[in-house]
Amino acid sequence: MTIFSKIIRGEIPSYKIAENDHFYAFLDIFPLVKGHTLVIPKVETDKFFDVSDDLLKEWLLFAKPIAHAIEAVIPCNRIGVSVVGLEVPHAHMHLIPINSADDMNFSRSKLKLSPAEFEEIQQAIAARL
Amino acid sequence: MTIFSKIIRGEIPSYKIAENDHFYAFLDIFPLVKGHTLVIPKVETDKFFDVSDDLLKEWLLFAKPIAHAIEAVIPCNRIGVSVVGLEVPHAHMHLIPINSADDMNFSRSKLKLSPAEFEEIQQAIAARL
Repeated sequence: MTIFSKIIRGEIPSYKIAENDHFYAFLDIFPLVKGHTLVIPKVETDKFFDVSDDLLKEWLLFAKPIAHAIEAVIPCNRIGVSVVGLEVPHAHMHLIPINSADDMNFSRSKLKLSPAEFEEIQQAIAARL
Repeated sequence: MTIFSKIIRGEIPSYKIAENDHFYAFLDIFPLVKGHTLVIPKVETDKFFDVSDDLLKEWLLFAKPIAHAIEAVIPCNRIGVSVVGLEVPHAHMHLIPINSADDMNFSRSKLKLSPAEFEEIQQAIAARL
């Protein structure tokens, strides 16, 4: 079972943003910027484009209101999207509030936020949903 | 009219990969790696998450066979996805064959390919579709 499946099952805690029958969204605990969120399907599939057509159809619709909520809360030009997937074999999409392309550069060092900071961001985004 | 709309209308040439009623895919002429492809809706919308639900539902399904074709042709671990959108106000998705996260780092210098190299890549990918 992937670490993401353990998060979905609640075996590993997460700063949850939203959930439906097929998808789960939560704050990335190694964020490039504040508000950096992961959106994952509940079914484990390694590669993004091997995910079923039914889920690929729904994925961006599930992400859309979350992206708008992040954009309303975190000062940014817009929400960037990134799917890399080289580390966890469970397809996942990064939603990243960006002001420059470099905000999506995964070679950058990650932010270190306190639990209180994560909770504040989580609550602010969730309040917009 | 955006530069991408001019490409769709054929007023600016492109190395086309695929097209349907709503989407158009072509090689990025400033590629991070060989096979780097752009997928755009024909309707102009600046921000990705302001695109209509109908198009967001179709977008990844249109991209899926293209991603698999690129993956079959370009040696890579998998196809990464990136939506940035700070330069052209016409929502677009990058499909990038990656071996490391750094292959999706837009701060890197772009490849310089000859027309013959672009045509070879275009034909190899299109032949898989």
